[in-house]
Amino acid sequence: MSLDTVLTKIDADLPVALDRLLELLRIPSISTDPAYKEACDKAADWLVADLASIGVEASKRQTPGHPMVVGHVDGPGPHVLFYGHYDVQPVDPLNLWNRDPFDPAIEDTAKGKVIRGRGSSDDKGQLMTFIEACRAWKAVHGSLPCKITFFFEGEEESGSPSLIPFMKENAEELKQAEIALICDTGLFQSKTPAIITRLRGLLGEELTIKAADKDLHSGMYGGVAMNPIRVLTKILGGLFDENGTIQVPGIYEGVPDLPPEIIDQWKALNFDDKAFLGGVGLSQPAGEKDHLPIEMIWSRPTAEINGIWGGYTGAGFKTVLPAEASAKISFRLVGTQDPVAIRKNFRAWVEAQVPSDCSVEWKDHSCSPASEMQTSHPGFEAARKALGDEWDDPAAYAGCGGSIPIAGYFKDILGMDAMLVGWGKDDDQLHSPNEKYDLESFHKGIRSWARILDAMASAA
Amino acid sequence: MSLDTVLTKIDADLPVALDRLLELLRIPSISTDPAYKEACDKAADWLVADLASIGVEASKRQTPGHPMVVGHVDGPGPHVLFYGHYDVQPVDPLNLWNRDPFDPAIEDTAKGKVIRGRGSSDDKGQLMTFIEACRAWKAVHGSLPCKITFFFEGEEESGSPSLIPFMKENAEELKQAEIALICDTGLFQSKTPAIITRLRGLLGEELTIKAADKDLHSGMYGGVAMNPIRVLTKILGGLFDENGTIQVPGIYEGVPDLPPEIIDQWKALNFDDKAFLGGVGLSQPAGEKDHLPIEMIWSRPTAEINGIWGGYTGAGFKTVLPAEASAKISFRLVGTQDPVAIRKNFRAWVEAQVPSDCSVEWKDHSCSPASEMQTSHPGFEAARKALGDEWDDPAAYAGCGGSIPIAGYFKDILGMDAMLVGWGKDDDQLHSPNEKYDLESFHKGIRSWARILDAMASAA
Repeated sequence: MSLDTVLTKIDADLPVALDRLLELLRIPSISTDPAYKEACDKAADWLVADLASIGVEASKRQTPGHPMVVGHVDGPGPHVLFYGHYDVQPVDPLNLWNRDPFDPAIEDTAKGKVIRGRGSSDDKGQLMTFIEACRAWKAVHGSLPCKITFFFEGEEESGSPSLIPFMKENAEELKQAEIALICDTGLFQSKTPAIITRLRGLLGEELTIKAADKDLHSGMYGGVAMNPIRVLTKILGGLFDENGTIQVPGIYEGVPDLPPEIIDQWKALNFDDKAFLGGVGLSQPAGEKDHLPIEMIWSRPTAEINGIWGGYTGAGFKTVLPAEASAKISFRLVGTQDPVAIRKNFRAWVEAQVPSDCSVEWKDHSCSPASEMQTSHPGFEAARKALGDEWDDPAAYAGCGGSIPIAGYFKDILGMDAMLVGWGKDDDQLHSPNEKYDLESFHKGIRSWARILDAMASAA
Repeated sequence: MSLDTVLTKIDADLPVALDRLLELLRIPSISTDPAYKEACDKAADWLVADLASIGVEASKRQTPGHPMVVGHVDGPGPHVLFYGHYDVQPVDPLNLWNRDPFDPAIEDTAKGKVIRGRGSSDDKGQLMTFIEACRAWKAVHGSLPCKITFFFEGEEESGSPSLIPFMKENAEELKQAEIALICDTGLFQSKTPAIITRLRGLLGEELTIKAADKDLHSGMYGGVAMNPIRVLTKILGGLFDENGTIQVPGIYEGVPDLPPEIIDQWKALNFDDKAFLGGVGLSQPAGEKDHLPIEMIWSRPTAEINGIWGGYTGAGFKTVLPAEASAKISFRLVGTQDPVAIRKNFRAWVEAQVPSDCSVEWKDHSCSPASEMQTSHPGFEAARKALGDEWDDPAAYAGCGGSIPIAGYFKDILGMDAMLVGWGKDDDQLHSPNEKYDLESFHKGIRSWARILDAMASAA
């Protein structure tokens, strides 16, 4: 009965919960761009105040980068730690947005109401589903069903440089919880709730090829002087063979062959790759020809050029040979692939192809291995069952193509299992223009967390 | 005697001539960028007024693009037409400039005084050398030694779209001159005056590879969805073979084998390619391995990627699969290479490599064939001799790697030969940050034009 009262309260309070989310979405907390440092700070302050409003003792905790928010509240059930991140991705290309990314709104679409704005799905909207569930529970019962530690990060979209040091320095405080709940993932194919048990790692590399010591006129130097864009395209153009196999030496070391029972299990999910690709205007899987599309996303490594630039890119034409050309490249990693070894091999592979007159400079970005979750804590089965009460289908234990390195850190540094569950949909346009979060995701997400907290309290 | 008086006047008036040039350089007449339309108009007005100040009846003549400036003045000698352009290249990357590109100044450098600013060399400084020579002549003699038509364009740096129609519509007016003087080239290896008799053509192409209908998250779609940067680098990475030979089918059709006597003549020029490349921090010729560096610049076709862009290019990292990726590519053409046929072949070559899920969109830029000048008009020898009086070495008939299609148009449309002579140096950083024009180029350039006009008047 008590859960039902909470669910009724959630339904009644949805409009004000939305107002609160829109307020948070208006803060442009882009963590990767130093210009938004103050906005990140403001988002952290906002969360401290919002947690205080539901009786959580929370504080902003400084790091060398953007601050963490940590709060604690007591309760009768098991001690859970909830993680989310308040920072968001950059918004460019801005001209492809249909509205100001930081002036969010509820929009009616052919598929139903959505919350449109940067961070609506990744991860402010998701983060707020948990806080709103707690708020409703507290309003109905005056207290919460579990002991809860809230732990919010502001650097998830820029490689989490402060996270490991912070976890180590504050391990005693954080490891009092027995299980971590991470809300930064989605439903399985936008329909079935999913508990993610398999995450890819991420290696981010940025390189700049340098040739002449200044930009040159192609009429005077064309042909005779080396063009760094030519060098860059030549090298990156050889990143894959005709079968989509990545050509960096040793890159497939540590990539496990999937056990036949997992392949069978995944085939049984009937992943609709035509619909998956068709939804974004494509039809042909581009990856390794001898693997299923779902393997490409969940269990195979990838190499992607995420950005490239050099020379004149404005309107009109400029016959320039630029002094340099750059690219950002990321690798998604699986199994026991070693990101440090792959970084070394990739750089050696590039450097061996740079002509004697050119040089290459590197910038480090993310560097995290893949992780696989343990599901032995009784909270996993309790949550899976509770999710089946809210959604049409029971929850699936699923893989995820993304990289949420924090899941591994909870195990390695704090010794606790992490349960990744979230309400995002495939078409949320994460990291893209016009990011949205379905109103249904937000609403049923809040309800789902109330059910999970209730189930975990009962299972303990 | 009369020439000496003019030269003395030029020396005396150099400071005020410089002031006038700096005034023109302050007008940011970037023709390729529509944001500077008004500035282009202002530069044309400035020239009309400046010509009026030396007694030339000039007017701004509208075109569908930026205006032309045309003026006429009478005199006893032959009728010459002087061509220059008042538009300039874009200034990015702005952060590599040591000063505001449109706040020009005279700077002291280790190599002597220079005029620093966008357009100082290309082409405002060069254009003004001719006007200043006329001004001094007029001040000393009250009139000019030749009949002169002044013809200034404002679209040279953006492919001259209005030029051919304008020349055709105004052919009767313009073809009264018997020879064209074009001041948009440089000294030979920064030391010896040169009359350019061989110019490369230019084909400019811009392509955009499109894949998904929106930017995608590489965690969700990486590996399985085609990345247009991968497609673009794969195609452009195959533009050259290991010997620097361009791989577009048919591209070498119409490229002449140089006659042995020309090769001998060029070898005799002792072109110092170590110094040429060393001056910009390079050491290895990058072009076709079986050709001399001077051939690569003067008589071989080139393909250069002048710009490339796609995905996230800001600070930090964004694991995006972009919806599209683009590049600007130019070809310098020689002999009878047909730019229209090469455009067709290049596009077909690219399109054959675009995967079924992607598409390619094209934008046209320049499209002009190479040209070779006739030097039979007596003005050529008169000018060559007069230049030997001003400079240490006699003038050379030389090639030029750049493309000045207008030279060919004077012959084809107006039936007159064009004499290309100018005072730029190899290190002027045309089209690059920190463009400069040596004070010596400006000063001796003005004196050179006075000598040329005197010699042509005498030869007639």
